Amino acid sequence: MNAAIRAATRSALAKKFEMVGIIGGYQGILDKNFKPLKTSDMGNIIQRGGTILKTGRCPQFVDAKYRKIAAQNLKEQDISALICIGGDGSMRGALDLWDDHKIPSIGIPGSIDNDVFGTDFSIGFDTAVNTATDAIDKIRDTAFSHDRLFIVEVMGHETGHIALEVGLACGAEEIFIPENPVTVDDAIQHIKRSLERGKASSILVTAEGKKPGRAYDLAEAIRKKSGFDAKICILGHIQRGGSPTARDRVLASRMGATSIEALLRGNCTAMVGIQNGEMVLVPLKDVTTKKKKLNTNLIKLARVLST
Amino acid sequence: MNAAIRAATRSALAKKFEMVGIIGGYQGILDKNFKPLKTSDMGNIIQRGGTILKTGRCPQFVDAKYRKIAAQNLKEQDISALICIGGDGSMRGALDLWDDHKIPSIGIPGSIDNDVFGTDFSIGFDTAVNTATDAIDKIRDTAFSHDRLFIVEVMGHETGHIALEVGLACGAEEIFIPENPVTVDDAIQHIKRSLERGKASSILVTAEGKKPGRAYDLAEAIRKKSGFDAKICILGHIQRGGSPTARDRVLASRMGATSIEALLRGNCTAMVGIQNGEMVLVPLKDVTTKKKKLNTNLIKLARVLST
Amino acid sequence: MNAAIRAATRSALAKKFEMVGIIGGYQGILDKNFKPLKTSDMGNIIQRGGTILKTGRCPQFVDAKYRKIAAQNLKEQDISALICIGGDGSMRGALDLWDDHKIPSIGIPGSIDNDVFGTDFSIGFDTAVNTATDAIDKIRDTAFSHDRLFIVEVMGHETGHIALEVGLACGAEEIFIPENPVTVDDAIQHIKRSLERGKASSILVTAEGKKPGRAYDLAEAIRKKSGFDAKICILGHIQRGGSPTARDRVLASRMGATSIEALLRGNCTAMVGIQNGEMVLVPLKDVTTKKKKLNTNLIKLARVLST
Amino acid sequence: MNAAIRAATRSALAKKFEMVGIIGGYQGILDKNFKPLKTSDMGNIIQRGGTILKTGRCPQFVDAKYRKIAAQNLKEQDISALICIGGDGSMRGALDLWDDHKIPSIGIPGSIDNDVFGTDFSIGFDTAVNTATDAIDKIRDTAFSHDRLFIVEVMGHETGHIALEVGLACGAEEIFIPENPVTVDDAIQHIKRSLERGKASSILVTAEGKKPGRAYDLAEAIRKKSGFDAKICILGHIQRGGSPTARDRVLASRMGATSIEALLRGNCTAMVGIQNGEMVLVPLKDVTTKKKKLNTNLIKLARVLST
Repeated sequence: MNAAIRAATRSALAKKFEMVGIIGGYQGILDKNFKPLKTSDMGNIIQRGGTILKTGRCPQFVDAKYRKIAAQNLKEQDISALICIGGDGSMRGALDLWDDHKIPSIGIPGSIDNDVFGTDFSIGFDTAVNTATDAIDKIRDTAFSHDRLFIVEVMGHETGHIALEVGLACGAEEIFIPENPVTVDDAIQHIKRSLERGKASSILVTAEGKKPGRAYDLAEAIRKKSGFDAKICILGHIQRGGSPTARDRVLASRMGATSIEALLRGNCTAMVGIQNGEMVLVPLKDVTTKKKKLNTNLIKLARVLST
Repeated sequence: MNAAIRAATRSALAKKFEMVGIIGGYQGILDKNFKPLKTSDMGNIIQRGGTILKTGRCPQFVDAKYRKIAAQNLKEQDISALICIGGDGSMRGALDLWDDHKIPSIGIPGSIDNDVFGTDFSIGFDTAVNTATDAIDKIRDTAFSHDRLFIVEVMGHETGHIALEVGLACGAEEIFIPENPVTVDDAIQHIKRSLERGKASSILVTAEGKKPGRAYDLAEAIRKKSGFDAKICILGHIQRGGSPTARDRVLASRMGATSIEALLRGNCTAMVGIQNGEMVLVPLKDVTTKKKKLNTNLIKLARVLST
Repeated sequence: MNAAIRAATRSALAKKFEMVGIIGGYQGILDKNFKPLKTSDMGNIIQRGGTILKTGRCPQFVDAKYRKIAAQNLKEQDISALICIGGDGSMRGALDLWDDHKIPSIGIPGSIDNDVFGTDFSIGFDTAVNTATDAIDKIRDTAFSHDRLFIVEVMGHETGHIALEVGLACGAEEIFIPENPVTVDDAIQHIKRSLERGKASSILVTAEGKKPGRAYDLAEAIRKKSGFDAKICILGHIQRGGSPTARDRVLASRMGATSIEALLRGNCTAMVGIQNGEMVLVPLKDVTTKKKKLNTNLIKLARVLST
Repeated sequence: MNAAIRAATRSALAKKFEMVGIIGGYQGILDKNFKPLKTSDMGNIIQRGGTILKTGRCPQFVDAKYRKIAAQNLKEQDISALICIGGDGSMRGALDLWDDHKIPSIGIPGSIDNDVFGTDFSIGFDTAVNTATDAIDKIRDTAFSHDRLFIVEVMGHETGHIALEVGLACGAEEIFIPENPVTVDDAIQHIKRSLERGKASSILVTAEGKKPGRAYDLAEAIRKKSGFDAKICILGHIQRGGSPTARDRVLASRMGATSIEALLRGNCTAMVGIQNGEMVLVPLKDVTTKKKKLNTNLIKLARVLST
């Protein structure tokens, strides 16, 4: 996300605007946690993981009372528009702030799950996919050397974007995601066929689902039905950090610069997205109400390639 | 490229075709260097750099006499169609083979330079960009600690795709590519402005151009005109190898599978490409005669963000 | 471990001995799973994680009856001595084989836990420590951005070698290992002091202990006593694989070559170790009965540096 | 080096001393470029490459006149002792400062070349070796795929420590270092034998020697004598940066803490070193006059393993 902050800040300063960083998201507005941003603050940050502005949850922001305080705090600081980086929740807050107090916002999709509607890619997704892929490559070494079955759980609450890309990239034997109706029995059949062909190790990839730990349930179900003993790896938070990939940095840089252009052209409630390689603006209304779809062709491809 | 070989092989075998690997490209056809490929040969290769089938230059292939020998060798082996992975030259060979001997071919673009017409991305490009970005991050540490000017040369003969992406991803102060009319004087002005603002280190990125070593010429020109002493790094062949990124593996897997579908649908002289996220088929005629353009918006963006 | 196999094989072949690989450890001897090794089999493997010879548990080997079968199988193959790479269990098997059947063995310590007596370092330890350190660096990004407390569980059954090195390398706020009498209360005090000083994120590192999952117990205990809510990461099997570090490759190469020299000098029951940078031979009797100690100075150092 | 700065600072503050950072080495003393260091300045830096205190050459420091100014500047700031991190030159400066002005110094060896007398390892060496090894692994992919000969030049002016470790770790076919009397003819013989055995790719590693570019001379000599055409890679400054390995961080942490202990015990002209795994103090007189030796056993080992 630092690349987006850098791009928005330098683009704004180049147009002679001032830029103020809000530390800790919406909670930072309530706490008046503001910090003027200079071009030199943007030096040497593009390669850093995480965000120099910190982040935080702010459940109170759904309450109009708190948004009113936020609006006052922003006005006190002469802040006339917001750039919000985040997922669904951040976009909803921005929309509410416009509806109640006419404070314009441009959203930038930052979500490793890549589940934000209106954009092919969110910032952080490519990095998370590569981190998970790299981790599974290491696990593959052990799976191969020990002739073992592994179940690896990657992030992804309601969607399987990470799991699908990672599963394809690692040659996973089966991919468990909400959009893919694969059953425990399918997986067991697959493992048996692999064994018959002489392949003694398998890796199954699963999205975490409702809450982390789904891999344990899968392992238990497989053990009960087949006797196969699976080792479990939950990749967890390592997927959220680390130096971003080049693709994420370039994407974030483009989105950051576009967000300033959008504000200058008078947009008040839009999110910057990338569609077919081009920067687009998507109404926040759509972003907060519509659901992004997964490319189901890739599910079919994964099935063919893992046999 | 191994991911593409794996995907094409497994897709073909799933359709009950046989698959034969040619070791060493067109030269391998002349040398009858063939190897039947089984599904188990494709295990545990998706994460490997390079190619299990090796590669090689074959300048003789422009000569119809040698193509005739190749056609005979292929017929002897009952090979009825080719999948060619490579750049411009490979595509031209495939087209010539069709024109002379009606041997159908489907091309797959494999070129870290990303300069193949008809596809937004070639296999290897994303990996090369990330490797170069990672290397420049390391150089940035020294540039910062020592207050130094660095010129880093990345690959890219006639086009600046790698240099532009890498320059953006690393926050390079200036990017020298054929498509960007930046002069040595511009770079010197840029460095001077940075120094005035208190920034004592700079990194310039250049595409190698006609032949490796352009960084030396730039450093000499900068030294003569300004007295600034630049350190030079030529990243070279490290950009060609290494475990591929997830994005490259997924792209290659899709292209490999699509190449078999294309053959089955009767295509004889097409290259698989990716355009706007979708698999497409591009006539080899176009691939070998048209020139791919660079996204010039990114050049402008790089200029704004590096100030 | 591939580097050790490569070094032993090439050293043996250079002395005009033949080398046979046993696939799958002691179980491989029982199954007569043998494979002659040539120098070309050793090409391009030094950088690979895992082991080309595979590995496996063989609980039966504690039973003299099975060792007798193993001895017969070895004699049938004209195998006159063994090189065993592994941990405590492997060394015990080698010693028993000598005691019962006078088959000489040289052991090479391969254990990411680094808990083998008689050697300062075991093969795999440096790689595991670097993989875990790299993972925690990524987690630190999130801990910092979100002001969060993390508990990271690394490998290490009865000893804290990995946890201690990793904790030092990552600047962990507290390190839970068998050899370090730190309590949950100590950790809570530490976190509170950090918060008072304005540091809102902390990372605690714990060795897995008796069985994986200790991090969950710690988190629960901390939550009950202090209300602090810790996120958990269990690094697990990613620590076992991946391309080995340079240090591990050089260590393994030295040990592999030394194992052949030891056999040629007539050693029958020794393990190769590294002590103070030099190759040494340690009686297998000592290796299987004595316990390696942890450098307690490093525990004290970790405490000073994390305040 | 940041890990050493962090360890020294936190150790000193724990003993109730104040700590002042000097920005830019000895030149920083002349320029009065001082900055008080707090414990919070040390947060989140252990994983960063380079140094937060910057570095710089100061050729004037060999002149007593400038050292007198430095001594005055230090006294003005109430700085009563120095911690110097660096190579030979830094140690000499510290010794001279004691001889002339009785300002006590403790040295910490920071040199990727690992050529500082009195310590088995210098800070930065392990990181440089791993970075170079990783780069050569990538080059090996291309060498293998293209059946090519590569000459890779790593750092190392007068000593071959990096080249030797890297050569061993990468399985280099030949290693050119000052301490190893291998000739161009030897290398050509080696390459020919490899070709006869069916191995079509080779990698030669060379230390840079007097000045960068030695690889070009070697390639030219090999071409003239044998006709073999070698590709060249000069790894250069990527070896100096990047997130340090765990081993380097632990080493630097130990040395930083030990440097403060040494000052407290009244040492005035010593360098901290690591010998046989233990922290030691070495007289600066020895460090600046004696020459470190290379482990020649490793040269022999490299020869056996590369055949």
